[in-house]
Amino acid sequence: MDVKKENFSEWFTEVIKKAELADLRTGMKGFIVNLPWAVQIMKRMYALYEEELERRGHKPAWFPSLIPEELFTKEKKHVEGFTPEVFWVTGAGSEMFKERYALRPTSETIIYHMYSQWIRGRSDLPLKIYQSCQVWRCDTSATRPFLRGREFYWIEAHDAFATEEEARAQVREDMEMTETIMHQEFGIPFIFFQRPEWDKFPGAVHTYAADTTNPDGKISQQPSTHLLGENFARVFDIKFLDSDGKEKYVWQTCYGPAIWRIFASVISIHGDDKGLVLPPKIAPIQTIIIPIYKKENEQQIKEKCLHLKDMLRKAGIRADVDFSENTPGYKYNEWELRGVPTRIEIGEKELKGPTFTVCRRDTGKRQNIEEVKSVSELMLLFEDIKKNLIKRADEYFAKQFHTANSVEELEKTIKLGGFTRIPFCSNGFDGQHCAEELKERVSGNIRGTIYGSKEVPEDENCIVCGKPAKVYVYIGRQY
Amino acid sequence: MDVKKENFSEWFTEVIKKAELADLRTGMKGFIVNLPWAVQIMKRMYALYEEELERRGHKPAWFPSLIPEELFTKEKKHVEGFTPEVFWVTGAGSEMFKERYALRPTSETIIYHMYSQWIRGRSDLPLKIYQSCQVWRCDTSATRPFLRGREFYWIEAHDAFATEEEARAQVREDMEMTETIMHQEFGIPFIFFQRPEWDKFPGAVHTYAADTTNPDGKISQQPSTHLLGENFARVFDIKFLDSDGKEKYVWQTCYGPAIWRIFASVISIHGDDKGLVLPPKIAPIQTIIIPIYKKENEQQIKEKCLHLKDMLRKAGIRADVDFSENTPGYKYNEWELRGVPTRIEIGEKELKGPTFTVCRRDTGKRQNIEEVKSVSELMLLFEDIKKNLIKRADEYFAKQFHTANSVEELEKTIKLGGFTRIPFCSNGFDGQHCAEELKERVSGNIRGTIYGSKEVPEDENCIVCGKPAKVYVYIGRQY
Repeated sequence: MDVKKENFSEWFTEVIKKAELADLRTGMKGFIVNLPWAVQIMKRMYALYEEELERRGHKPAWFPSLIPEELFTKEKKHVEGFTPEVFWVTGAGSEMFKERYALRPTSETIIYHMYSQWIRGRSDLPLKIYQSCQVWRCDTSATRPFLRGREFYWIEAHDAFATEEEARAQVREDMEMTETIMHQEFGIPFIFFQRPEWDKFPGAVHTYAADTTNPDGKISQQPSTHLLGENFARVFDIKFLDSDGKEKYVWQTCYGPAIWRIFASVISIHGDDKGLVLPPKIAPIQTIIIPIYKKENEQQIKEKCLHLKDMLRKAGIRADVDFSENTPGYKYNEWELRGVPTRIEIGEKELKGPTFTVCRRDTGKRQNIEEVKSVSELMLLFEDIKKNLIKRADEYFAKQFHTANSVEELEKTIKLGGFTRIPFCSNGFDGQHCAEELKERVSGNIRGTIYGSKEVPEDENCIVCGKPAKVYVYIGRQY
Repeated sequence: MDVKKENFSEWFTEVIKKAELADLRTGMKGFIVNLPWAVQIMKRMYALYEEELERRGHKPAWFPSLIPEELFTKEKKHVEGFTPEVFWVTGAGSEMFKERYALRPTSETIIYHMYSQWIRGRSDLPLKIYQSCQVWRCDTSATRPFLRGREFYWIEAHDAFATEEEARAQVREDMEMTETIMHQEFGIPFIFFQRPEWDKFPGAVHTYAADTTNPDGKISQQPSTHLLGENFARVFDIKFLDSDGKEKYVWQTCYGPAIWRIFASVISIHGDDKGLVLPPKIAPIQTIIIPIYKKENEQQIKEKCLHLKDMLRKAGIRADVDFSENTPGYKYNEWELRGVPTRIEIGEKELKGPTFTVCRRDTGKRQNIEEVKSVSELMLLFEDIKKNLIKRADEYFAKQFHTANSVEELEKTIKLGGFTRIPFCSNGFDGQHCAEELKERVSGNIRGTIYGSKEVPEDENCIVCGKPAKVYVYIGRQY
């Protein structure tokens, strides 16, 4: 049975446990221990994302984890959106503070408080800064490792510009980064939506978000970008003296790749019934070498393994040898479970050379490679594995799109999972009522209109209220 | 005037401001913004330390930032030591929790709660895990960026062993790591002390700590290692079934390289009146290229700069060109202030080749290098700069040691800064009274006995109580 497809939720829980990715037994709901194998993967994911952000002009900074209540509550919609989930620090030692501190659920307020002190003239713009950090939200719904928790790990990039045009260009750049890293490196396909008005980030003009789907067809929100306009600038007084001699508010955007959630998608989308399947670039071990020996050749084979490991490592390949007492079969399972992209078995035959057998985790296929070419052959293999993972994921994702022209049709398609396109009255606030009705009838959430799409309904009506449809929106069940 | 020596405190504040390392205007005492240049340096410091920890068998994990009060207060001495400084999270949204959470001031309690669930048999040992994270302590004394704050950045490594012997060997390994990274990479000299009984980490059997000195002669505590013995294991019930069939408590150690504080020492020890001086391995930019042009050769020179930058980058050297509108002299100052290890000036002469002039930040000396050899020559130069920084720091540090045989003598030597060796009654609790008297009379803190030292006083008396001296301890003024 294909457990992952049949019972995704159980599969996900099992894989996290067996591959030792997280331990939930902290005694605190929604707070988990991120175990070494998971952290080693996520550190690489962070590094790749950070490199891309820096390549596009962002610089790293570390802002405080605590935010004074006065600052935190400055932007009205923002505070309304986040306050119900904020953890409050009310004192230290035996002393109570006069003013509480919010444990940051997101960092706009403290960061923009600084921006108002840093930005003076045009030469201070654009200002593009990111921080890799945790945020805390007291989510009262069911929590799951990497998907939903009270402490989660992300990157937040906060950019300020002189003009609206530049801010809008940043939204496109954020989408490009999502493509370059999340899709092309981690193999997670996505589609970028403009969220409906009623589902925006609190304080934003527009929210654009990448959605992907899990094998159970449920939608997982991935990095989102918010066009903040001048909203926060007006509240935090972030102004610059423009070249025309006038003081103007900056235009802002923020972008939030949640490494935790992307990792959840890496587990879910690439994994199979044997466990994780990791893209080579983020695998802590890229090649595991398994010695297969009898007493008489044990020494020679172990030496051969070590020699191979050293040679691969010198070439920059993350190789390791499993010298544990377990049987080769046990070891195969173990490393397959952890998603190691390639396995090399070294036995009597390999002692003589001149070839090795390499087994790919993604396809299970074996192939011979010449020992003298092992570095270059493995490098090619890694590239091929990555491409294959992307291809498989893309093919799966392409099947996640349906259309419906009535609520009855939608009732059927929404059960298939993924996204159903429907003609809809409005992506603006006037569509909220219909959205709520749909939520009740089909348990689906409107994801919004496709970003940059030119598709517009002609002579179609909203499937809920029957008024002329102004937009096509996509709807599906989410995490 | 040598400002750094004459008025170190002012110099430190200025350099942090001018080199844009930190911004204190967050509105919260002890909470600062770590600015991009500082973060880029500290990220490299973290990476080097993490690599060394992993090389020695540690694995990374991320534990929760919050700790339930019940867990936090399990170990009596530990809680007594930390409770006065703990930030408390008492609720979320508008709800108050039944039980408070401590915002971790250090992570022993939550980590050992997990260890008690993970450790069962000998094969689970040794268990060596680290996390790179922030901790929060509501320090009521004066705070200073990177030296003392309410949110600070460190690494904590927590190790569990089957035997006392292995735990003691880990203390030596921790000292070796301090030598390999803090001294040999970052150029910070140190001496490892066994702290007196009254100055141990709360809950430890022994505390061993690396001390270094700043240019004002004040002592800065650097990474410390704590031999926890079975103390926490008994409280948190961390037992394993030994090969002799008996259940035993594990022996534990913890090691805490505070990247923040080490960075403070990097600034203080290597810096000069022109600003920062960075060891090349942790410098965000290793070579800054300055174009010097007139109108007629501007295009050519800019191209030459870009070409050189690309060539250096391809070879793995972090090079950049300063194309800003400022004058060359202004640029020199700017990059010297930020501590960039080498500067290359490209003008009319360099267009013709075949040599460049390279200027070293550490010595200010200029030297010619052949263009075709620039990569290898720069690499050698980086190595030489590192060695020179270590040498200078070591020479300075060697002068920080004095001896005194009476309180009167000590009164003089302590003003010289650094460490004064004195014959002392005891490093145990029975020496505490004399330590307190000394603290009052000379404002100095006893740092303890030198770790592993065999020096023992013969026929000497404690300079305070006059009883026979059992140990030589070192005393000095600290941050």
